[in-house]
Amino acid sequence: MTIKNVVMAAALIAVPCAIQAQVVVKHLQPNEKSPIATGVWAGDTLYLSGQLADPVTPADAAKGTPAVYGDTKAQAFSALTKIQGLLKAQGLDMKDVVKMTVFLAGDPANGGKLDFPGLQASYTQFFGTKDQPNKPARSAMQVAALAAPWALVEIEVIAVKGK
Amino acid sequence: MTIKNVVMAAALIAVPCAIQAQVVVKHLQPNEKSPIATGVWAGDTLYLSGQLADPVTPADAAKGTPAVYGDTKAQAFSALTKIQGLLKAQGLDMKDVVKMTVFLAGDPANGGKLDFPGLQASYTQFFGTKDQPNKPARSAMQVAALAAPWALVEIEVIAVKGK
Amino acid sequence: MTIKNVVMAAALIAVPCAIQAQVVVKHLQPNEKSPIATGVWAGDTLYLSGQLADPVTPADAAKGTPAVYGDTKAQAFSALTKIQGLLKAQGLDMKDVVKMTVFLAGDPANGGKLDFPGLQASYTQFFGTKDQPNKPARSAMQVAALAAPWALVEIEVIAVKGK
Repeated sequence: MTIKNVVMAAALIAVPCAIQAQVVVKHLQPNEKSPIATGVWAGDTLYLSGQLADPVTPADAAKGTPAVYGDTKAQAFSALTKIQGLLKAQGLDMKDVVKMTVFLAGDPANGGKLDFPGLQASYTQFFGTKDQPNKPARSAMQVAALAAPWALVEIEVIAVKGK
Repeated sequence: MTIKNVVMAAALIAVPCAIQAQVVVKHLQPNEKSPIATGVWAGDTLYLSGQLADPVTPADAAKGTPAVYGDTKAQAFSALTKIQGLLKAQGLDMKDVVKMTVFLAGDPANGGKLDFPGLQASYTQFFGTKDQPNKPARSAMQVAALAAPWALVEIEVIAVKGK
Repeated sequence: MTIKNVVMAAALIAVPCAIQAQVVVKHLQPNEKSPIATGVWAGDTLYLSGQLADPVTPADAAKGTPAVYGDTKAQAFSALTKIQGLLKAQGLDMKDVVKMTVFLAGDPANGGKLDFPGLQASYTQFFGTKDQPNKPARSAMQVAALAAPWALVEIEVIAVKGK
């Protein structure tokens, strides 16, 4: 066995190691009461659950007053801000979003139709800007209803930690 | 060339092997007549097609009687049971589900609205239990209609074989 | 240190190289004015944005006449043809599609219901044929509305470059 053969043998050993490499899966489920995960890491890919808006006036909920969630534009901004926070907590940011799906409910203020310009007005503050030029692959449509009766916008993303 | 140099050379050879590794894609399409795959493996990731419920009383179909598919809770339980079976056949289980999307149709028994508690009642039997604590990232919404007129629930999942 | 030990040491060195490998993310956003990417590569996985049909009679748009987009079958064929073109530009083809989601709008020509046979008539020209036997995992449903008022079909795919 020559030294050259040793190097070749080592190279042959190295090939299976790459193929056998399995991804590390990590479920982010900080809230025991929530039936779903906030997100799940699968290797370098982070799947986030669909995000609804936070109430514009959260204090109202405690007072027994219906919380105000705002129109499509406001709810889209809120949901995207939540997504950004979740990504940052995982060492990612909006630039790392590779795929987005936007589920819109018909907006009563728009005759029960989806408010696409309202979505875009908030979306374009996070994607394709001078500071953050990346834009995700995206699908957007109007569904019949979201899980919460007040919800006009649900946004889910897949983000990837690239090198 | 010293032995130390041989080891270093082997390490350099190993790096490209990992980068060149491409994923193995495998289409699971056992049913020739079905226009879609049951699922597709892409490396460690398994994409399953959206699953509808099985009829509660399958024998009725052969008798010419309309099969009964049940309400949202029953259909969610049936679809999830089908998903579990498909995962097990691939060496996976519910714990390996990283992402789920639930498409609900309006339930006539609920005034044409989505029956979210019905979905949750079945879902929580499979996820976040003592025996199976993992919960997936999930989005759920009401769509206008599913492919089959009787269908109230369609569930699709992405599962990952982690190490 | 024997030669056998050198080979074993090299194998041990090779393992971390595979785990450290991170995916390369590439945003395909050729159109500066578009708020979304055409698609995004994440390693071997290509996420394409949801595709709508092209107008059947594009010249009409310039003439000020409403462009004609056709029925569900025609729009599905157009959207799938666009997807095929986008995949080919990236060195992929329909055989590499691992997951598809089809969002249908109610077809006025079908009483406002989804035209599932119309979708299938076009879909089966691209998948599960003699020349291209691969079929993707798929979900398909009727949504309340798509982003463009004339749109009856939106199709998004995930494709993977397999070895």
